[in-house]
Amino acid sequence: MDLKARAAAHPDHWSKANAIRALALDAVAAANSGHSGMPIGMADAATVLFEKHLNFDPTAPNWPDRDRFILSAGHGSMLLYALLHLTGYEDMTLEQIKNFRQWGAITAGHPEYGHATGIETTTGPLGQGISNAVGFAMAEEIQRAHYGKKVVDHYTYVIAGDGCLMEGVSQEAITLAGRHQLSKLVVLWDNNNITIDGPVSLSDRTDQVGRFVSAGWDVIEIDGHDPVEIDAALTRAKKNQKPTMIACKTHIALGHAAQDTSKGHGALTNAEQNTAAKAAWGWTTGPFEVPDAVLQSWHAIGARGKAAREAWEARFDSLPRGKRETFNRAYALEVPKKLSATVKAFKKQMSEGAPKLATRASSEKVLEVINPIMPETVGGSADLTGSNNTKTSDLGVFDTDNRGGRYVYWGIREHGMAAAMNGMALHGGLRPYGGTFMCFTDYARPAMRLAALMKIPTVFVMTHDSIGLGEDGPTHQPVEHLAISRATPNTYVFRPADTIETAESWELALSSKTTPSVLSLTRQGLPTVRTEHKTRNMVAQGAYVLADAVGKRQAILMATGSEVSLAMAARDILHAEGIGTRVVSMPCWELFEEQDEALRKRVLPGGPVRVAIEAGIRMGWDRWLFGERGKREKSGFIGMHDFGASAPADVLFKELGITAEAAAQKVRDLLAGKWKPDTRV
Amino acid sequence: MDLKARAAAHPDHWSKANAIRALALDAVAAANSGHSGMPIGMADAATVLFEKHLNFDPTAPNWPDRDRFILSAGHGSMLLYALLHLTGYEDMTLEQIKNFRQWGAITAGHPEYGHATGIETTTGPLGQGISNAVGFAMAEEIQRAHYGKKVVDHYTYVIAGDGCLMEGVSQEAITLAGRHQLSKLVVLWDNNNITIDGPVSLSDRTDQVGRFVSAGWDVIEIDGHDPVEIDAALTRAKKNQKPTMIACKTHIALGHAAQDTSKGHGALTNAEQNTAAKAAWGWTTGPFEVPDAVLQSWHAIGARGKAAREAWEARFDSLPRGKRETFNRAYALEVPKKLSATVKAFKKQMSEGAPKLATRASSEKVLEVINPIMPETVGGSADLTGSNNTKTSDLGVFDTDNRGGRYVYWGIREHGMAAAMNGMALHGGLRPYGGTFMCFTDYARPAMRLAALMKIPTVFVMTHDSIGLGEDGPTHQPVEHLAISRATPNTYVFRPADTIETAESWELALSSKTTPSVLSLTRQGLPTVRTEHKTRNMVAQGAYVLADAVGKRQAILMATGSEVSLAMAARDILHAEGIGTRVVSMPCWELFEEQDEALRKRVLPGGPVRVAIEAGIRMGWDRWLFGERGKREKSGFIGMHDFGASAPADVLFKELGITAEAAAQKVRDLLAGKWKPDTRV
Repeated sequence: MDLKARAAAHPDHWSKANAIRALALDAVAAANSGHSGMPIGMADAATVLFEKHLNFDPTAPNWPDRDRFILSAGHGSMLLYALLHLTGYEDMTLEQIKNFRQWGAITAGHPEYGHATGIETTTGPLGQGISNAVGFAMAEEIQRAHYGKKVVDHYTYVIAGDGCLMEGVSQEAITLAGRHQLSKLVVLWDNNNITIDGPVSLSDRTDQVGRFVSAGWDVIEIDGHDPVEIDAALTRAKKNQKPTMIACKTHIALGHAAQDTSKGHGALTNAEQNTAAKAAWGWTTGPFEVPDAVLQSWHAIGARGKAAREAWEARFDSLPRGKRETFNRAYALEVPKKLSATVKAFKKQMSEGAPKLATRASSEKVLEVINPIMPETVGGSADLTGSNNTKTSDLGVFDTDNRGGRYVYWGIREHGMAAAMNGMALHGGLRPYGGTFMCFTDYARPAMRLAALMKIPTVFVMTHDSIGLGEDGPTHQPVEHLAISRATPNTYVFRPADTIETAESWELALSSKTTPSVLSLTRQGLPTVRTEHKTRNMVAQGAYVLADAVGKRQAILMATGSEVSLAMAARDILHAEGIGTRVVSMPCWELFEEQDEALRKRVLPGGPVRVAIEAGIRMGWDRWLFGERGKREKSGFIGMHDFGASAPADVLFKELGITAEAAAQKVRDLLAGKWKPDTRV
Repeated sequence: MDLKARAAAHPDHWSKANAIRALALDAVAAANSGHSGMPIGMADAATVLFEKHLNFDPTAPNWPDRDRFILSAGHGSMLLYALLHLTGYEDMTLEQIKNFRQWGAITAGHPEYGHATGIETTTGPLGQGISNAVGFAMAEEIQRAHYGKKVVDHYTYVIAGDGCLMEGVSQEAITLAGRHQLSKLVVLWDNNNITIDGPVSLSDRTDQVGRFVSAGWDVIEIDGHDPVEIDAALTRAKKNQKPTMIACKTHIALGHAAQDTSKGHGALTNAEQNTAAKAAWGWTTGPFEVPDAVLQSWHAIGARGKAAREAWEARFDSLPRGKRETFNRAYALEVPKKLSATVKAFKKQMSEGAPKLATRASSEKVLEVINPIMPETVGGSADLTGSNNTKTSDLGVFDTDNRGGRYVYWGIREHGMAAAMNGMALHGGLRPYGGTFMCFTDYARPAMRLAALMKIPTVFVMTHDSIGLGEDGPTHQPVEHLAISRATPNTYVFRPADTIETAESWELALSSKTTPSVLSLTRQGLPTVRTEHKTRNMVAQGAYVLADAVGKRQAILMATGSEVSLAMAARDILHAEGIGTRVVSMPCWELFEEQDEALRKRVLPGGPVRVAIEAGIRMGWDRWLFGERGKREKSGFIGMHDFGASAPADVLFKELGITAEAAAQKVRDLLAGKWKPDTRV
């Protein structure tokens, strides 16, 4: 490509794009680590997007009606940091750029949500950003339907690379976007033909245009270095009735010795080559130096959105007060004042009625009272609506002719659902929850981890949470999945024992501002164990004494979810034998861990033998069994030691030895000094 | 649809297909659980496939050159069980069919590999079967190139439903199949327009034909109930130079009151409606009764392949003895006799040279000596070849013009790679290993779990296994992933400390017949800690004394992988202070758990304080810290308590407190009685 001719044809554009290229090149070289080629290759498209289309205001980075810009190809983080710096985001100083990838800097290797303003989502694990974006675009549609076009009317722009498009989750995302005609979603594909291992053709020869068309998208193919073509494509995309993919034919590491090679994908650190590249671009200033005129023109771009933002504020202020309050409350992730009283009333009613219900059905009952008072909830399921019990009567179904519908039929797309829910949460104004079978935590994992890392309160409703699902067998029976979610930092794993604990878990999940929740719910019916009404949210304590020993306390049974009623039955057996037994329900370990030592000690005092009962593997339980004043030789575990099997649930619990009698026998053995190690302790 | 006209047009076909339909309907009704509609809807296609195309022999179900049939829509398991029963697989008795989904039966809710002959892979988690199938088809190509068309020449047939096609992993699989022109892969799509939540259009409107064409497939659209069209499509598919998708337009639960509804997807248990359905099909016998003539014609289909199998055996016997032996050895998952000596010689050389190497580089060195003597290995990476160090010089690259190549550029498809590797392992004759960053365990999880469940020895090479990867930051830094894999039943998690342990881990992973392995390898360089050569494979013991205390043993440091050298440095610090310290390297917990109590006690005696060092979260360590003769108040953990950060690796280890000095200080504190709980113990 004749770079001189390019520069001559569009000198202003060229120098602005060069500023991105140069900052990226310098920052990566200084860090001796990172990805130079992508920011260099996509600088033209990003420049035109920010200059002529993106509606944003660096002085109000969280303005709710801004356009969203998502760098799905997160390894090209310097593209984003350069844009934020050049357009005048206050926190993105030149010092931060110079400290790219260093301890304490906000300029992490991949864009981390919450580190710097203007980062809309954490990207890096490929395919996540484009899938988040679908959630952003859905959130915009839903909010527009709820609040009107005057206050919600913005676009979601994505830059995605070949890696994003090869990840399977992108297929889930783009077919979902096509299905819902998300016309305000625009994906710019950095079509540079290069991956780490070499040319894309080494591993993939997909006709991406045909693929997107098959998913219901409009596709525009352009020269990704031509500002006129980029501008025209974006203009057309914004008028589309379908989501738009703009295939930008680009050269990775444009103008560098590593142009069009996989070497160009990584860190370009050869000083001589970097100098030559800058010369080829016509960039003459020193490292990290942006000529004043160029900086001013970028600042002007950054200042462009102020008027629009102020006009929006005026329009917003003209909304009825109630609408404004709800809007602001939802964006602030505050729950409505009514929530607490609503949950209490529900609990009282359930304690009195003491229904026998699967906790998935309990969950539906809870949602039936919560959803009407929290218009920001958006429910859904990955094609298991009737099984996950996620749909309540008032939600309405999100569709092309019902944009205000708050229930999403996500289809068989657990991963795409989780990622899009994250997008909705990040967009703001909505509280998404979505269901699948707990075993399919596996499919949703990459996005579940990112919710935890980003500190956003997405709610994952995981039903059929043990062998209790029965005949579907080991492929569908979670065994290690409680451990997996508990192992993940910043994740609440709720495993409620009955309808009351389910209500309390939901209250906590929906009150969380910075921690995602996993709700582990049963397929099978469970008795109400909380028959005595308490206004206090006991799950908030993480673990508590559900029923204390009668007489001398000789044993403590610890259990979660469906095994709490087993523990209660074991307690009855033991009490009949004169063995005083306490039952501790432990619906949320993470919250119990946050309690102080004195409280934990009151719940789990030293002395009695301890038996934990949970229809999952043992990993993690040792803290509560041996630790916290327990002793290995005075403790036992009743649970799973391997994958499950296909049979009716009651047969499985019996055959696999997860019964009240087994728990009682374990207590008797321990009291008699007959401790035995687990086969897999 | 006029069922009578259908029956009249092809009476023989119709009655055979009816046998499948009736058995499925009866078995699901008897179990009161399962999926009736899919077997009913796909009975025609399956009948034609088995009658006229599938090359198989029920009397030799593992005949290596059989065609493979994969029921990707695993919930329709009764389709498969009916076919196996009708064609005469000995273990699939009518009794088993009657015990569908019951305890102890081989007829699990979803087809479980290893439960019954003729089940080629475990399916149920949607999208897995079709992705396994790509691995099967690649394995066939590779083996054909190695052994010749006379002994390897078979097709892989798949039945996939809408759910399989909506799962993102299917996109990874089909684009891979298209890229490699896997012409002997044929997918029959059960295009019935129904999912659990309702019509497919509720959540998806993808043009599947366009999608497959964009991925490089040939697509044939047919009436899925017309045996002539089915036969013609299969005939054409077999001659194709591309993979073929046959879109079979079908009616779920054909002829039943629930036909074409989502109710028809599930268990059809209404006796009256079931009777009416049978009447509509023209099926007049009682439950589980197949008229003798129909059974005979099915048995004839089952007998069809015997001659071909015998002819194959004759051709196989004419292979040179060496080839035959290698072929049989690889199918039996036996390692070559040379392996042990090769690994020993390598270990000796490395102990002497004591290189400082990242274990990912150690792994490459090991593979450089193993791959040449194990022609059954197939390596690969999800677009991180240079980072995962999975490619050795002799493998050659698998491609359309080099079918014998043993290295696969999987592209950015971690999930598809893992599932296809499972397919290769299931196909037989190959030992696949593939790499990605350990953090992307998340993407590969669904297939990794299935490897464990199926008991197949797939090897997952997970490099960049901690914050030691440095600047890429928290999105790329595994923290909980060791715990995740350790939580999974039947999985070896190897975290070697140096080149020697890496060699020992590889020897074990490649010797395993029934357990998949995760190799957790560093990005950063590590010193050799096993400088004294031992012929014995110490990793086989799971944990062992790497260096014992000098003087009185006051402390035991336990560590894995990159933290073993930290433990050794801490030991030096402590010895200088007169504190006798043992270092226990624990490269594979699962293998240590298998050791007897006496051995475990020798390695981890009671008494000394214990400190575990691992750059991951604590979960799981409590067993070794408090359990196994340890005490909570005499133990400590040096590791991660949250997600990582973006900075150079050495800065991260220091800032996050994972250092030799921190470990030494923890020992001093514990010896002084100054125990403190972890923030997240």
